[in-house]
Amino acid sequence: MESLYVIKIGGNIVDNPALLTTCLQAFAQVKGQAILVHGGGKMATSMAQSMGVEQTMVEGRRITDEATLKIVTMVYAGYINKNIVAQLQALGVPAMGLSGADGNLIQAHKRKHASIDYGFVGDIDTVNTDLLLQLLSTNTKLVVAPITHDGKGQLLNTNADTIAQSLATALATKYNVHLIYGFEKEGVLKDINDPSSVIARMDKPIYGTLKDQKLIFEGMIPKIDNAYEALDNGVQSVIIGKAEKMNELINGTAGTTITK
Amino acid sequence: MESLYVIKIGGNIVDNPALLTTCLQAFAQVKGQAILVHGGGKMATSMAQSMGVEQTMVEGRRITDEATLKIVTMVYAGYINKNIVAQLQALGVPAMGLSGADGNLIQAHKRKHASIDYGFVGDIDTVNTDLLLQLLSTNTKLVVAPITHDGKGQLLNTNADTIAQSLATALATKYNVHLIYGFEKEGVLKDINDPSSVIARMDKPIYGTLKDQKLIFEGMIPKIDNAYEALDNGVQSVIIGKAEKMNELINGTAGTTITK
Repeated sequence: MESLYVIKIGGNIVDNPALLTTCLQAFAQVKGQAILVHGGGKMATSMAQSMGVEQTMVEGRRITDEATLKIVTMVYAGYINKNIVAQLQALGVPAMGLSGADGNLIQAHKRKHASIDYGFVGDIDTVNTDLLLQLLSTNTKLVVAPITHDGKGQLLNTNADTIAQSLATALATKYNVHLIYGFEKEGVLKDINDPSSVIARMDKPIYGTLKDQKLIFEGMIPKIDNAYEALDNGVQSVIIGKAEKMNELINGTAGTTITK
Repeated sequence: MESLYVIKIGGNIVDNPALLTTCLQAFAQVKGQAILVHGGGKMATSMAQSMGVEQTMVEGRRITDEATLKIVTMVYAGYINKNIVAQLQALGVPAMGLSGADGNLIQAHKRKHASIDYGFVGDIDTVNTDLLLQLLSTNTKLVVAPITHDGKGQLLNTNADTIAQSLATALATKYNVHLIYGFEKEGVLKDINDPSSVIARMDKPIYGTLKDQKLIFEGMIPKIDNAYEALDNGVQSVIIGKAEKMNELINGTAGTTITK
């Protein structure tokens, strides 16, 4: 099967033009099919501030009220998505930007939670695999913004990590899918204070041992659990590592490659 | 040849939720291929105000400085485009939203003018006809935002009427293209004060006579001249009329049908 790279870049990358360019140049050089999923960054928050839209955080999560949804739709699916596409086009990449509403790419439902009303936050129900296959078959490279819809006309703010994972999983029977998360650390570290202690390959037994020894820091655990969910659903490998080294992450010469 | 409807809806329609819904319902019912091109509306101006971005008008035209480009990209390609797509999806239409940057759909250059610097305003160079044909062949209905790019990474604010005309012209050898402009008047009127005096069909001789008699009001002349440019380039018919009657405009039972 042909390879497909699903690459997620977070808000901190989007906020840093030089780092964003590094990532886009690496993305442009991917041999084979590729999908870029981007997060939001600080722009939505600063926009909300300049527009006097108050941001409510509950347990570290932003509540997406109507005014905030409007802002994140504009910033994520508009400004960030189209600027990334224009930059990729300038690099000669036939890139197309999509939100989850476009072509019904990602349908979601408004999050239900016993005690917290997250507002217009979407949890993913379905991915339009046919559309992805059709677009990829023409060698189009896709740039996906973290906005989905519910099929009834409502847009929803949706976690970009989860979108990347859902797209990777949806395509796992058709491609050898490699899911790459670019972030601010070198990868999974044996010693959180030593960036050189990156674990090049981590399988489930090693993960179990490191977790038992409490050597894996807290923010990392959901990322790795998500990685295993993707692997359990047919994704070939999940690579996490420093966004600055996106080229090496793609080539598998940096970061941590997580396998079953 | 199969029919294709290219339908332009202006900012006044986008600003009016009930009217927008009317137009989207009509668009949803088009038999055959369809492309919707939407304008901007007042939201960009009110966003600019709430963000303290001053708007400069020169000879009735908005100058698109960097801050304004950011706002129109967010509002047109983000908020408006994605909300229209989500609404169409809710109506069962396989709609996909695109800016001119996506898939290199519309490449433009920054406007050159002897005395006025319009800022980041684009004049269209090329339309990616292959991409349009490929998307239309899967019965995808397209929703196009009036933002283009220059191929070098720069987004550009571009007139939606011109985009509609360019797309219609680009597809004229492959489809029987009908170009529809929904606006606030019934159509071309014989008597500007009598909405019932709409001219159902207007060819070039009739247009010439009406212009000589100064019966056609000023704002209409560039619209009609653009219509003739489209017709001279292979478009089958250009229909202009009241957006509230979008269904009838599509069926050819309202508005003015302009022919050669």
